[in-house]
Amino acid sequence: MTLKKILIVSGTHGNEINPVWAVNQFGKQKNIMDNNIEYKFVIGNPLACERGCRYIDNDLNRSFNLTKNTRESNIYEVNRANLLIDKFGINGSVPCEIAIDLHTTTANMGTSIVMYGRRQKDFCLAAILQHKFGMPIYLHEKDEKQTGFLVEAWPCGLVIEIGSVAQNFYDLKIINRFLIIISSLREEIYRIKNNQIQLPQDLTVHVHQGSIDYPRAKNGSINALIHPERANQDWKPIKNGDPLFIDMEGNTITYTGEDIIWPVFIGEVAYKEKNIAMSFTKKEVINFSNKICEEFFS
Amino acid sequence: MTLKKILIVSGTHGNEINPVWAVNQFGKQKNIMDNNIEYKFVIGNPLACERGCRYIDNDLNRSFNLTKNTRESNIYEVNRANLLIDKFGINGSVPCEIAIDLHTTTANMGTSIVMYGRRQKDFCLAAILQHKFGMPIYLHEKDEKQTGFLVEAWPCGLVIEIGSVAQNFYDLKIINRFLIIISSLREEIYRIKNNQIQLPQDLTVHVHQGSIDYPRAKNGSINALIHPERANQDWKPIKNGDPLFIDMEGNTITYTGEDIIWPVFIGEVAYKEKNIAMSFTKKEVINFSNKICEEFFS
Repeated sequence: MTLKKILIVSGTHGNEINPVWAVNQFGKQKNIMDNNIEYKFVIGNPLACERGCRYIDNDLNRSFNLTKNTRESNIYEVNRANLLIDKFGINGSVPCEIAIDLHTTTANMGTSIVMYGRRQKDFCLAAILQHKFGMPIYLHEKDEKQTGFLVEAWPCGLVIEIGSVAQNFYDLKIINRFLIIISSLREEIYRIKNNQIQLPQDLTVHVHQGSIDYPRAKNGSINALIHPERANQDWKPIKNGDPLFIDMEGNTITYTGEDIIWPVFIGEVAYKEKNIAMSFTKKEVINFSNKICEEFFS
Repeated sequence: MTLKKILIVSGTHGNEINPVWAVNQFGKQKNIMDNNIEYKFVIGNPLACERGCRYIDNDLNRSFNLTKNTRESNIYEVNRANLLIDKFGINGSVPCEIAIDLHTTTANMGTSIVMYGRRQKDFCLAAILQHKFGMPIYLHEKDEKQTGFLVEAWPCGLVIEIGSVAQNFYDLKIINRFLIIISSLREEIYRIKNNQIQLPQDLTVHVHQGSIDYPRAKNGSINALIHPERANQDWKPIKNGDPLFIDMEGNTITYTGEDIIWPVFIGEVAYKEKNIAMSFTKKEVINFSNKICEEFFS
């Protein structure tokens, strides 16, 4: 497999508007094509973008496991997933070897990478970005409740996740961060290809351990909020007894566990409906094969 | 008219969730009733709150001019407006003399007051809050495109508008600000009543002059964003030539006008659909009648 085309997806969630703007702005710039790698751009969920909502019927970024046996669905996002695979998938009419899915979050995640499982090629790509920008990596795996992510349908792919920014709110600082990443990616791959830079031998990742919900009343309504000491503290380690939530009476609910954990996506607005108040991760150093990377980027 | 009941409305917009939480939390506290003024609490738009969206069919806070001749409407919010007036209006079953409508904004408005027109009793109420908390006041008037605000259906009423906070995002700092205001209001009225404090003779307000839209393409899509020098600079004066917007090519669109103006609601997410990028105001000092206030609060 020769790397020829990289698919850049924005607007997979219709209320994450900054990546869409960044891609449009990038398209207006004069792009110096310094290698044979081409970008293809697509809006993931155009109808949701038009309406300013996350999705129409089902979260598009949880719909890519629903495609196989449902060619014609009454779920808008399943049809959309099929269409994206048919066109830009590795066996599609415009085959792309890599998919980069651009997202924003209301959580204070900074400029970060989300990857799904332990695919060697994904490690190569993540290593490029971590090496260049020092981006932290959230490795999502072994979670039966959260499946069907877009980039999993490509041989290689990552999510770029930037926050905090509100849904439907334009923020030029966030837009500029996406622009820098889009602008740099091809150049960095070119440098790898031409041995101008060397990838690190290992990668520090934060591995998904599970998620916790808000404390809820019997009727399902949230009855405690993210504790002020925890709010916006994504990527910061916590230990047994550290505060997680605070209820209306001022009672603190603490983390109970022997292991030190690193919470991420703390208080993400869109995850309330998924019963996720935050996810827990543990740090791990991944040793990956540079040989595979060299072959992939050759 | 004797002041007996104050209606506190939260959730007039279903994605402004912090006021709803603040009111619930206030209800769990032991309230010291130090005068004969009672609070009544109501969720403005319960269905929109359930769905986490601003409104169902029509912005509830623009629906109070539609009630008179439409007793049974197929617009959810018109029925809701009728219901609120029938119950808590001055001629309703639980008559309230004052309505306080609690809102949040994605704009950097701080803790502020919005008032509609120049009703003497509103000035009394605004003076209490400005005297206590130094809150800036946006006086909205003479705008044919924006009418039908909730508090206008009561003899006296104000909006408390706090931001910036994202839609559907819980923020304890914002919640605490609402709690302080709800807790203080009755106490302050009590003090006025008992001559423990004196209202100022005049009030500084920012008077609405009009609104401007984003620059848009022919198809209606926004094609320039709030300029970085203007973003989050609500209440700060600008003069001829100061930047307003920046487009994808980096061109700056500036303010052209002889008068110094003070923009507010800069980049409010919910106003994109109303074609408002920001509103312009001018400063004015209002001299109001303390005699009317004394009578009102007696």
